[in-house]
Amino acid sequence: MEKLGMNSVNACPLTPLGFLERAATAFGGCRSVVYHDVVWTWSQTFRRCLRLASALVSLDVSRGDVVSALLPNVPAMYEMHFGVPMSGAVLNTINTSLDAPTVAVLLAHSGAKIIFADPAFLPLLTDALRLLPPGGQPAPCVILVEDPYYEEESTTTHELAVLTTYEMLLEKGDPEFTWVRPATEWDPMILNYTSGTTSAPKGVVNCHRGIFLITVNSLIDWAVPARPTFLWTLPMFHANGSSFPWGMAMVGGTNVCLRSVDAAEVYATIDRHGVTHLCASPMVLNVLTNAPEGVRRLPATGKVRVLTGGAQLPAAVLELAEAVGFQVSHGYGLSETGGLVVSCVLKDEWNKLPAPERARLKTRQGVRTPVMAEVDILDSETGRSVPHDGSTMGEIVLRGSCVMLGYLNDDKATQAALRDDGWFHTGDIGVMHPDGYLEIRDRSKDVIVSGGDNISSMEVESALYDHPAVNEAAVVARPDEVLGEAPCAFVSLKEACTVTANELIAWSWERMPHFMVPKTIIFRAELPKTSTGKMKKYVLRDLASGMGPTRGSSEM
Amino acid sequence: MEKLGMNSVNACPLTPLGFLERAATAFGGCRSVVYHDVVWTWSQTFRRCLRLASALVSLDVSRGDVVSALLPNVPAMYEMHFGVPMSGAVLNTINTSLDAPTVAVLLAHSGAKIIFADPAFLPLLTDALRLLPPGGQPAPCVILVEDPYYEEESTTTHELAVLTTYEMLLEKGDPEFTWVRPATEWDPMILNYTSGTTSAPKGVVNCHRGIFLITVNSLIDWAVPARPTFLWTLPMFHANGSSFPWGMAMVGGTNVCLRSVDAAEVYATIDRHGVTHLCASPMVLNVLTNAPEGVRRLPATGKVRVLTGGAQLPAAVLELAEAVGFQVSHGYGLSETGGLVVSCVLKDEWNKLPAPERARLKTRQGVRTPVMAEVDILDSETGRSVPHDGSTMGEIVLRGSCVMLGYLNDDKATQAALRDDGWFHTGDIGVMHPDGYLEIRDRSKDVIVSGGDNISSMEVESALYDHPAVNEAAVVARPDEVLGEAPCAFVSLKEACTVTANELIAWSWERMPHFMVPKTIIFRAELPKTSTGKMKKYVLRDLASGMGPTRGSSEM
Repeated sequence: MEKLGMNSVNACPLTPLGFLERAATAFGGCRSVVYHDVVWTWSQTFRRCLRLASALVSLDVSRGDVVSALLPNVPAMYEMHFGVPMSGAVLNTINTSLDAPTVAVLLAHSGAKIIFADPAFLPLLTDALRLLPPGGQPAPCVILVEDPYYEEESTTTHELAVLTTYEMLLEKGDPEFTWVRPATEWDPMILNYTSGTTSAPKGVVNCHRGIFLITVNSLIDWAVPARPTFLWTLPMFHANGSSFPWGMAMVGGTNVCLRSVDAAEVYATIDRHGVTHLCASPMVLNVLTNAPEGVRRLPATGKVRVLTGGAQLPAAVLELAEAVGFQVSHGYGLSETGGLVVSCVLKDEWNKLPAPERARLKTRQGVRTPVMAEVDILDSETGRSVPHDGSTMGEIVLRGSCVMLGYLNDDKATQAALRDDGWFHTGDIGVMHPDGYLEIRDRSKDVIVSGGDNISSMEVESALYDHPAVNEAAVVARPDEVLGEAPCAFVSLKEACTVTANELIAWSWERMPHFMVPKTIIFRAELPKTSTGKMKKYVLRDLASGMGPTRGSSEM
Repeated sequence: MEKLGMNSVNACPLTPLGFLERAATAFGGCRSVVYHDVVWTWSQTFRRCLRLASALVSLDVSRGDVVSALLPNVPAMYEMHFGVPMSGAVLNTINTSLDAPTVAVLLAHSGAKIIFADPAFLPLLTDALRLLPPGGQPAPCVILVEDPYYEEESTTTHELAVLTTYEMLLEKGDPEFTWVRPATEWDPMILNYTSGTTSAPKGVVNCHRGIFLITVNSLIDWAVPARPTFLWTLPMFHANGSSFPWGMAMVGGTNVCLRSVDAAEVYATIDRHGVTHLCASPMVLNVLTNAPEGVRRLPATGKVRVLTGGAQLPAAVLELAEAVGFQVSHGYGLSETGGLVVSCVLKDEWNKLPAPERARLKTRQGVRTPVMAEVDILDSETGRSVPHDGSTMGEIVLRGSCVMLGYLNDDKATQAALRDDGWFHTGDIGVMHPDGYLEIRDRSKDVIVSGGDNISSMEVESALYDHPAVNEAAVVARPDEVLGEAPCAFVSLKEACTVTANELIAWSWERMPHFMVPKTIIFRAELPKTSTGKMKKYVLRDLASGMGPTRGSSEM
């Protein structure tokens, strides 16, 4: 038995790139990508990606080089996910809402050789390239991805030297190109910079094996059927759209592209194309479900399935989304895992419970998805598992084949995250319930330490979200003379709703331990968020600090 | 970029065993296994499998030891698929329809330490153990898996020393056992002997990684939804039920067990338990769809999905199954791949074609499943791909991570199958159609070489199956004085149907090139088949040879 093992036949590296080749045969005539009047089939998409890969090779891109994209969810962005790694290069999609200095930092850090850019982001890119440190590596070549459906709002001129356009590049490419298979399944395939809830972006590198596995994991965990119609409401630059670009090729789905998310357009597109599946951050889901009544209508033909993720799914958002007619699944993942690795498997018996209890169970992050090996919550001092009591907080740690290779050129950050104890330390704080379901309580840096008590900002936010007038809420620490820190809530209200700070404090008083009640309530028309819908809590923390310390009593 | 790679967090070996641990949390209260009045939940099944694993360890079973099972599809057989490898051992399920000398050969070859046996097979096992070569390794310990729902037809006594019963063993086991994870994902997990269409069984060894991958492959390719109800019509000893024991734990399905396949019981069970999915060989599907009208009724609540596989799906069987109300998927796989690795992805446009053309397209084996890296058909002389013309025959070859580690203690057979060219040579003969769909034409040893022409026995059989009176057909070579070999057909008829040999020859004459028309037609009440429904063509070939050579004209 010992003599048998890996051999020349079964040692093929795992890679998601082969899904496209298969799709060209199995789903050849089916719609792969739809964008306004553009309709591609799987056999066309395969050939376009081979053209892209071969054209990149002819531009001297070779194995391990970085190719970047500054693109919205247009067809070319989809094609990047196959065409770039099929040339042997590593794909780096860049968050299009970053500012020029940050984009410059990323380009310098990754050493991107080529960048594909949308017309809307040429001014941003122009500024970023100007900010590249002099004397460093050559600036990346720019390839313009023209979009006939983009109406330029101004005639901004840019001074960018554009090498060619995307379609001209493809024209020179070879649709019969033999794509570059990875030498090993551990070869880097994807580079994603973590989005800016902190100020120091890190370059997450995922390999072919990890992407292959998170793709099958995501399909099975969400029970995606054959040939779904998938609406691209989630930016593909956000952890590569949670692996679904590759997943759609595996199951022969149709990718419906969207430049930007506007509630009316989303509902109209769902209707027009018979959309069956979409992903959205809780914030975007909130926008969709709070759209005016005439707009938020779903087709009568079966439920639209929505997958949402992130640290927090407010019960109010979930309930409203279900009332609108979405079938909501949710979970938790990070760029470092390439997609969701914990998800809330719903149980029939929960439906018998009263609504608040049901919502409490359903909004927990859940259990590990099937491909992840292990998930746990560790006491940060002892390093041991916390009791499964639903209240003892600890750090969420993960282990499994979807976890990244590490951070690019950042040994210190890599070692801090991927520890010798065999766990990926996420920096997220959570609890484990007696039924084995995990619940996130906070990012460790967002925990408020008040008079010796740890307050989960998310728990406070969750209670505020339940108030009928509250649209969004974010709670951060504000210095307090007596307690060290005290909770400070930033709140935006729904259209035509009013509520006073005193009323919100009274509301909180009835719904949480009293040490958790915000001492300060600040109303804002809008709260600062990243493009992927995460609160920019560091901005709010700065604002709260700037107000000076509270003095032991509620302030409004 | 080069510095990043496998690390302590992401190097976890892939294994399907973790699916059960997760199922105990995610689907804990849901039905896992149902058998008459026995109903287990996933949390119970997990604990029973841990008990089994710990009990095996306490019986001195250690990593790499072989544990065998001679069981029908009862709950214990399901539990073997997790409990045995969770002890570190390799599971070997034995085809229960083998004869005692063959079982003895397998036990001696595998060196099984323990064998779990059903009461029905104790006489067989008694005989087999008696036939073990003297002076070899110690005979395996026998553990009796009692079955309250098995009515012994006779009071056959056996002289077997039984160590204990299955339930007594579990009672001594530890439900909190820390299961043995594989040291590497290439560790052997499964040993299956190829079933006896040839006389020399070979021991196929699959590893944890291969089984993990064929399991996700099978779920995604068949688009299995969350929490299906799966009826065990396919023996689990047949390539481990095509990987679905592990797949059901991944998606939280319910396993409905069946000791044996009887059409009336199958339809009644489908109705009683709301079965959504089942697997069946084309032969079993033929039996199910030819059941009397009163029996073959499916519930009105949605289609029952059937997955079938093997070398041949006669169009008549497919059509009838669809008429009964089954939604049929089919494909091609081998024990060496652990499940189906080619499957017929149906295309909407085929539905517009006339019935015979549609059936011709739908009964082809299809395209590679998504986890397989590559599939091709090679000319056996040049080793090059055959043209995609639907007519040039060659050997079907496969490459990918689901392919076995090799044959146990059989370097020669391993090297003949897993060649240095990087391909698994299947020994099956097929053609590639212009649309990239593969079609099997024959096992290479079943091809009839007649006057310099290669005749696919399956093509001839397929035309015979289309005749309304024909129940089953098998075509083999019979020596011919002029042509070397000529096709000889063995045919069984449907109940109350008659047809003459002349009529069948005339029927064939109109439906195939004339050199392919059988020269001999032999009617039999039943054709010899293995328990998994494969024709025993070697038996028929011997019969055909025994009749002496044909002399150039049709004979009946």
